[in-house]
Amino acid sequence: MPKVLITTVPFGEKNRMPLDLLENAGIEFLINPLNKKLTEDQLAELIPDFDSIIAGTEPITEKVLGKASKLKHISRVGIGLDNVNLLDAQKRNIRVSYTPDAPAPAVADLTVGMMLSMLRSIHLSNAQLHEAKWSRIFGRRLGEVSIGIIGLGRIGKKVLTLLKGFGSLKIMVNDIQTNLELDPELNLEWATKEKIYKEADIVSLHVPLNVYTKNMIRKEHLLTFKHDAIIINTSRGGVINESNLYEVLKSGHLSGAAIDVFEKEPYDGPLIEIERCLLTAHMGSMSVDCRSQMEIESTKECILFLSGKPLKSEVPPDEYEIQRQGF
Amino acid sequence: MPKVLITTVPFGEKNRMPLDLLENAGIEFLINPLNKKLTEDQLAELIPDFDSIIAGTEPITEKVLGKASKLKHISRVGIGLDNVNLLDAQKRNIRVSYTPDAPAPAVADLTVGMMLSMLRSIHLSNAQLHEAKWSRIFGRRLGEVSIGIIGLGRIGKKVLTLLKGFGSLKIMVNDIQTNLELDPELNLEWATKEKIYKEADIVSLHVPLNVYTKNMIRKEHLLTFKHDAIIINTSRGGVINESNLYEVLKSGHLSGAAIDVFEKEPYDGPLIEIERCLLTAHMGSMSVDCRSQMEIESTKECILFLSGKPLKSEVPPDEYEIQRQGF
Repeated sequence: MPKVLITTVPFGEKNRMPLDLLENAGIEFLINPLNKKLTEDQLAELIPDFDSIIAGTEPITEKVLGKASKLKHISRVGIGLDNVNLLDAQKRNIRVSYTPDAPAPAVADLTVGMMLSMLRSIHLSNAQLHEAKWSRIFGRRLGEVSIGIIGLGRIGKKVLTLLKGFGSLKIMVNDIQTNLELDPELNLEWATKEKIYKEADIVSLHVPLNVYTKNMIRKEHLLTFKHDAIIINTSRGGVINESNLYEVLKSGHLSGAAIDVFEKEPYDGPLIEIERCLLTAHMGSMSVDCRSQMEIESTKECILFLSGKPLKSEVPPDEYEIQRQGF
Repeated sequence: MPKVLITTVPFGEKNRMPLDLLENAGIEFLINPLNKKLTEDQLAELIPDFDSIIAGTEPITEKVLGKASKLKHISRVGIGLDNVNLLDAQKRNIRVSYTPDAPAPAVADLTVGMMLSMLRSIHLSNAQLHEAKWSRIFGRRLGEVSIGIIGLGRIGKKVLTLLKGFGSLKIMVNDIQTNLELDPELNLEWATKEKIYKEADIVSLHVPLNVYTKNMIRKEHLLTFKHDAIIINTSRGGVINESNLYEVLKSGHLSGAAIDVFEKEPYDGPLIEIERCLLTAHMGSMSVDCRSQMEIESTKECILFLSGKPLKSEVPPDEYEIQRQGF
């Protein structure tokens, strides 16, 4: 009987369907017994027994794959592939699936929620009132600030859609693909990253983590931001250099940062000292509907693979190509 | 020289223009020396000296007006008139202006920000991470819940506009005027308040405080809400009975409440004990642009009045009519 390791947690919690699918297919599975994101060593120790892995963002490195003597398939619950050594998987003839569409709507909602929280100090006022401190804090409307969106994949585009109702914002956009068709109603302006850094009141990142985006935003960039700018990262930790961000915020620059993703998760680093840093626990995709969708899609890929059927959502060649360019 | 009392604070802080306008018009003014919302007694003590008042939400009662021997004009910074005894003002031949349009966009932004914070536990995850606790909390997207909007004045309508980009929500609406023209694109459904209470995942209130809306939502109504419903009040304290809300939340019913307005402000009542109550300090209109607009408009009304010119934004007869019906 084939055996599947489910590393990502929670899994099957709000919707049992993926677990039922596995059971009905006669597939034995183990859900991450540590109930938190596995380290490389923990995963290496667990993995030898399994034919397929339904994976989160834990490191699936050469070292891990070296121990995975039976593994023939990785099914990523989500879109980012920065944690998977695709080239080593390919060498070992391990195929990789992912669920690129499912998380986008939930991540986009969280992003706009963070924008509004930051602009209106919702989280700060809430913390104050729960300590019986009453202070009416000034804010800004989404309609009176300029926004810079870096990365116009599924999530960046969805953020643009959500912003529609907020009126005649100035929205600057940037992507490595410059021939994307965008909604003319939105009144968008293509801009270089440097222009966005300098001119946007809110900079929001929607890029994958790869050799081109790792440490994309460092101290020298952050210092070119407007003094009261807000930076939002719901993409991947490491796109902004975290210790640089800490240093710059500590120095008093920027009105704040909203960060959902971290270089090392679970996060307990120094950003937690900074009150004007809004922090959430990698919850971008954690809406009941999107998360269920991701779990079901990745489980179905796993079942297709283990029953010898063609995969529906295999990672495309350009993802391998980008890893070939380094990391 | 005419003298003006400015009770609402902060005033002229982000934009000095209203203060400059008064100075240029040769009008002497005093900004609330206590720098917080005045009580009835405090206002009664201050008011005798002044010809006009640029007013916030402090109680402008019969008792206060009885002391206001020189007062001939009240200029409300904002839209709500629940704090002004219009009938007594009328008897004393005191005219009243307000700024009904200016606050709407800022209140609507805060409302949607609260919806997203509540749905995705942004404020809770932030509080946890600042204590180095990492817990990925499940949420819902705005696109997967049904929303009930009670009150379709300037603010309720603006909320509907902001929700546009969030997709094919089910949105139920209710207003005392049933012949309002609403955007057909929004896919709205007229519903009774009772149906909204029972069926909405989020109930958001956008009504004035008057004899018809005071204590509109009491325990018996809250208990008909869905067990995991969210109630949002950015309108006026007193529309929801606060102690009933406390009792119902304490009993475990409702997934939470987001409250910006209170029966008594500054608020330090028992809702601060309840973690799933998102509280903000009456900041609905506190965006720099809307607040400036409100301060400038109300100052201009004051100057028009004191220079004997016709008012531009006098409170209309139906506001008097509604107070005539009781309180």
